[in-house]
Amino acid sequence: MTKHNFDEAIQLAPVEGNLFAGVLTESYNNMVGPFGGITAATLLQAVMIHPERLGTPVSLTVNFAGPLSLGEFTIEATPMRTNNSTQHWFIVQRQDGVVTTTASAFFALRKDTWAEQELAMPSAPSAETVAPVAARFTPHWVENYDIRFVEGGFDPAKAEPRDSSRSVMWVREKPERLLDFQSLTAIGDSFFPRMFIRHQTPMPAGTVSITLQFHATQTELQEAGSAFLLASAQANRAQQNYADQTAHFWSPTGKLLLTSHQMVYFKH
Amino acid sequence: MTKHNFDEAIQLAPVEGNLFAGVLTESYNNMVGPFGGITAATLLQAVMIHPERLGTPVSLTVNFAGPLSLGEFTIEATPMRTNNSTQHWFIVQRQDGVVTTTASAFFALRKDTWAEQELAMPSAPSAETVAPVAARFTPHWVENYDIRFVEGGFDPAKAEPRDSSRSVMWVREKPERLLDFQSLTAIGDSFFPRMFIRHQTPMPAGTVSITLQFHATQTELQEAGSAFLLASAQANRAQQNYADQTAHFWSPTGKLLLTSHQMVYFKH
Repeated sequence: MTKHNFDEAIQLAPVEGNLFAGVLTESYNNMVGPFGGITAATLLQAVMIHPERLGTPVSLTVNFAGPLSLGEFTIEATPMRTNNSTQHWFIVQRQDGVVTTTASAFFALRKDTWAEQELAMPSAPSAETVAPVAARFTPHWVENYDIRFVEGGFDPAKAEPRDSSRSVMWVREKPERLLDFQSLTAIGDSFFPRMFIRHQTPMPAGTVSITLQFHATQTELQEAGSAFLLASAQANRAQQNYADQTAHFWSPTGKLLLTSHQMVYFKH
Repeated sequence: MTKHNFDEAIQLAPVEGNLFAGVLTESYNNMVGPFGGITAATLLQAVMIHPERLGTPVSLTVNFAGPLSLGEFTIEATPMRTNNSTQHWFIVQRQDGVVTTTASAFFALRKDTWAEQELAMPSAPSAETVAPVAARFTPHWVENYDIRFVEGGFDPAKAEPRDSSRSVMWVREKPERLLDFQSLTAIGDSFFPRMFIRHQTPMPAGTVSITLQFHATQTELQEAGSAFLLASAQANRAQQNYADQTAHFWSPTGKLLLTSHQMVYFKH
């Protein structure tokens, strides 16, 4: 059995202490450098395999500081503070000694409490009835995903600007792979930039900082399996080179697994 | 003229290199330790007064790792990477050598681009017609703010649970003070925990990680002056000790100045 591109991409080898080594290959190439989601997942992976890790991720912020090239990189994952049931991490990715990415993560041992979900899953036709996104308009990394737009797709051939930045899509890994915190992290960055959607044309754009909030428990990830997740994304404001994007990701049974919030550079 | 509590609270003295020293006083006391917003503003302040700072804040993530006590603390603000027009910071607050708070910040020199705001300000009665929050239900730090709930207030005397976590409020500093990035940061954390609003009763609760996205330009901050900002907040999901909260803050003329996203610990 061939290894999944995703598992190969986030693979890290322990070097010593908090230091891990990885290699960037072409499988998740974006316009410049790799898909941000795979970088975020790789930084999370360093904590997931760290022998001092406590619990599961509750929040993760990844800051994209500079371009990452194909080849070797290191990740240093430092537990900044460990409490009884919570843990704070600082993570730095470097290439040739230069910082390319920084991140902070909050992990916790979670216990049952009062629980409720206020944000319902939007209604959408089933994934099977929606066409996959046309490959000719997508960067290379999208080949690792099955993305099906329900609303707010991207078609630069028509280039008809839209009044709203809202998109709704089904998304899962291609080939199918069981959901875990690492793959959910990457999926959390799988929307095209909102400015592409508004203007229906590509332009220089890239995430500078993304924050992921993990609502999902391990049990909910297992329940989701390798099914399509339904996801929505929208920008609140774009101004002076930066636009925000808030996105929500639901399991097929309507459980909100993840929210992601990012600031995205654009030039237009 | 007496110094404003806010300016006194975020005051830092350069020690050497990236290190700054401050003192926590009682003026922003919360249930345990200080109001998270004042801590976030103080960490941002270290970057704002750092001689190597480039541009203005675009995003800031603050992770509350452990309690902060009254007295001296240090803040180490390290520029992790500086590009032509962007800069990434890592910030650590320590007390008696122990990490209490970590943060990352992204700063940029911003230029005019295509711009639009999708998220309109909700309609609300003018601040002058709304009653200030009753002081008997609020922690000490709230005395530094004029908070007026339009929707979703907090009244544990009635203790009637609500079906929605949504709150809308007017907020400004008391006494009035001209808005800047530091005060906007603190205001970004000025909502009570969503679990208080749902259950209308206090419980153990505290922010573990907050991300602020700065849409505001310097000019827009000056235009806002010391006026009330209109703000809304809502949780998407609460489960196993953690609930999220997304909040938006508009200038009196309807410009979205800031969004904040946090994960909040609760026990209930």
